[in-house]
Amino acid sequence: MRTTIANVYKHVNETVTIGAWLHNKRSSGKIAFLQLRDGSGFIQAVVAKAAVSEEVFEQSKNITQETSLYVTGKVVEDSRSPLGFELQVSDVEVIQEALDYPITPKEHGTEFLMDHRHLWLRSKKQHAIMKVRNEIIRSTYEFFNEEGFVKVDPPILTGASAEGTTELFHTKYFDEDAYLSQSGQLYLEAAAMALGRVFSFGPTFRAEKSKTRRHLIEFWMIEPEMAFMDHDESLQLQEEYVAYVVQSVLKNCKIELETLERDTTQLEKIKAPFPRITYTDAINYLNEQGYDDIKWGDDFGAPHETAIAEAYDKPVFITHFPVEIKSFYMKPDPDNPDVALCADLIAPEGYGEIIGGSERIDDYELMAKRYNEHELDGPAYEWYLQLRQYGSVPHSGFGLGLERTVAWITGIEHIRETIPFPRLLNRLYP
Amino acid sequence: MRTTIANVYKHVNETVTIGAWLHNKRSSGKIAFLQLRDGSGFIQAVVAKAAVSEEVFEQSKNITQETSLYVTGKVVEDSRSPLGFELQVSDVEVIQEALDYPITPKEHGTEFLMDHRHLWLRSKKQHAIMKVRNEIIRSTYEFFNEEGFVKVDPPILTGASAEGTTELFHTKYFDEDAYLSQSGQLYLEAAAMALGRVFSFGPTFRAEKSKTRRHLIEFWMIEPEMAFMDHDESLQLQEEYVAYVVQSVLKNCKIELETLERDTTQLEKIKAPFPRITYTDAINYLNEQGYDDIKWGDDFGAPHETAIAEAYDKPVFITHFPVEIKSFYMKPDPDNPDVALCADLIAPEGYGEIIGGSERIDDYELMAKRYNEHELDGPAYEWYLQLRQYGSVPHSGFGLGLERTVAWITGIEHIRETIPFPRLLNRLYP
Ligand SMILES: [Mg+2]
Ligand SMILES: [Mg+2]
Repeated sequence: MRTTIANVYKHVNETVTIGAWLHNKRSSGKIAFLQLRDGSGFIQAVVAKAAVSEEVFEQSKNITQETSLYVTGKVVEDSRSPLGFELQVSDVEVIQEALDYPITPKEHGTEFLMDHRHLWLRSKKQHAIMKVRNEIIRSTYEFFNEEGFVKVDPPILTGASAEGTTELFHTKYFDEDAYLSQSGQLYLEAAAMALGRVFSFGPTFRAEKSKTRRHLIEFWMIEPEMAFMDHDESLQLQEEYVAYVVQSVLKNCKIELETLERDTTQLEKIKAPFPRITYTDAINYLNEQGYDDIKWGDDFGAPHETAIAEAYDKPVFITHFPVEIKSFYMKPDPDNPDVALCADLIAPEGYGEIIGGSERIDDYELMAKRYNEHELDGPAYEWYLQLRQYGSVPHSGFGLGLERTVAWITGIEHIRETIPFPRLLNRLYP
Repeated sequence: MRTTIANVYKHVNETVTIGAWLHNKRSSGKIAFLQLRDGSGFIQAVVAKAAVSEEVFEQSKNITQETSLYVTGKVVEDSRSPLGFELQVSDVEVIQEALDYPITPKEHGTEFLMDHRHLWLRSKKQHAIMKVRNEIIRSTYEFFNEEGFVKVDPPILTGASAEGTTELFHTKYFDEDAYLSQSGQLYLEAAAMALGRVFSFGPTFRAEKSKTRRHLIEFWMIEPEMAFMDHDESLQLQEEYVAYVVQSVLKNCKIELETLERDTTQLEKIKAPFPRITYTDAINYLNEQGYDDIKWGDDFGAPHETAIAEAYDKPVFITHFPVEIKSFYMKPDPDNPDVALCADLIAPEGYGEIIGGSERIDDYELMAKRYNEHELDGPAYEWYLQLRQYGSVPHSGFGLGLERTVAWITGIEHIRETIPFPRLLNRLYP
């Protein structure tokens, strides 16, 4: 019976065959312990000299790291292993012997590991991160499908950008100039007017020469956009969504969080509602805490975000930023038009901003005024303005950065490990 | 009580308020029928002169197309409508009056509609197509999650391509040259060696100057890749996947398929297993049918694919293509190395190829030979070759084109209507 490591629990005391790779091994005189991995999980296979042919036992002691195998054995319970089972081996068949696998259990430098990313992904920690990333994606779809959202895929290639082209990748689109999208939001607003509630999940690109542990050149965003939803309702949706994802990971990635040595008590606290603080109060708080490098009208840097986050044990919404430092399409607060009906969601534990969102301007005259101020002329922008002409409605939306969310939930230091093949300044390989 | 059209069934005989747009209307002396849409669905709202104020009745008779509204009324069953309910209106509040909405119920030319794609999406047919697209995506995630696959996002920006750069979009990646991905497959093979079973769902790009009803410049692909899976097992997975998606759409998109006037009897037949015909038999069949423009060694054109598909009422796998006309990484058939362990899946009713897949070469020596033949030298290709060095295993994968699948299942003529904002030759707007 062929099965996978994740499914051995269905075959207790049965003999199964698993296609796998040798992750690690140790042996003493009459017994060899093979740590196997098959992508679905990790399991210990015990080869007792008495239980196999002499040839299989000798071979087992000498299997090299990452050699591919078919291993046959009986599934038995083992309360000491995270999986809860081990394999009592009756046969081992080598598929292909791996010689001199470059990533050994010893320490390697970051550049070396990044150059070998195609192999590094096989390590226990990277495997766990990718499984958590997958669970975040899976639960995102589940959440938005259950809330009646329609997945909409906005275009990646666009003819113009409302927010400048300096940080955009350029390409020739036959005879025209095109840019890689930084956000699908404008398109998602059009789609929300057709489909009510929509969300995208796709790659975005920022040609930014920054080299911090929070930045990727190519990263994935989840961008929901909701017709007939105001700012407050959007914040509620955001906190429910983030809490849903965190609780899904806690429930479905127990082994992976253990592998990552993640402090899950921090994650268990992540339930709606989340605290809210206005931008103005946040500035005052920072000044009181001794940060004299920031004043009303400035945007937060990473240290400021961390200082604010430290005051809470949940993600915190910073709301009502000055209109001047936010995007042109954000709706001014009717009670105080100097600030916008917007919020950034700052993750706990120093992971920074994971969501930016706002209610959108729905008034045609005000949007036309913004067009003038930002010199958004020409036909490339006409269609977006038209959304305020033909049945404009209150609407809100937000964007969640997948990789920053993975970094936070897995508790890892650097965002480069949160995506299978990171694109960084000076890194386009593998 | 605020609700959406999709949720009125939960509020029968209750009074609800719906945020919506006027899709269409007709009125006689004492009654106005408002066709409302809110993205979640379409509903008829009946405004009886006797049931509302004189002001609301007069206003209702004069509401213009695509005006945004809050409509309050009682939900009553109505067996004549596809939804099964209508609204007996007690109040109507106009949010924003739409004047001279450009897309009227009369006929418009394709270029006009494409120029107004941001508004055209609101039409009943386009709305239905997007909902079916969403259900295909939703059920795809459901299927692969249930089968133990991990979603992996391969990079879009890549430094080199194993299959030439003439049909790739180019960009400068700081000081390097980069290209937009046509397929994540090579990366997915690396990921499958780490995670066992993986799938991607993302945009791909082809800078091809073709202008057929089957081609988009930017399109979305689902690419599963499976370690320890041979060609035959992959075909079984493919037919189960496609059948699952079709049956999910039939179950969850009844109203939309009715709107699209789709012949659902054709879709009900789509259950595993699917027929298989070898490339060689397909060539013979075509020659027998009088196609003298194709011989062994040629690739199929659209008319050939259609002719083959017409012999079946399910999708058909054409298997074992000549190695020469397929990709360098496809595994030759051990029984006949002139042909590959590969298959294209051809949709019924003339919709053409929706899947291409194969078992991959897992032998290092053979892959090294292919590298020589295809002049894949330099470090950019080294990592992919290494996968055959460090624990190579039998593995297979395939790619399904989302938009062609949407076209087939919705039964629409042209692929440009299957994606929210199509990118075509000479079309980068809106
Ligand atoms: Mg910020
Ligand atoms: Mg083909």
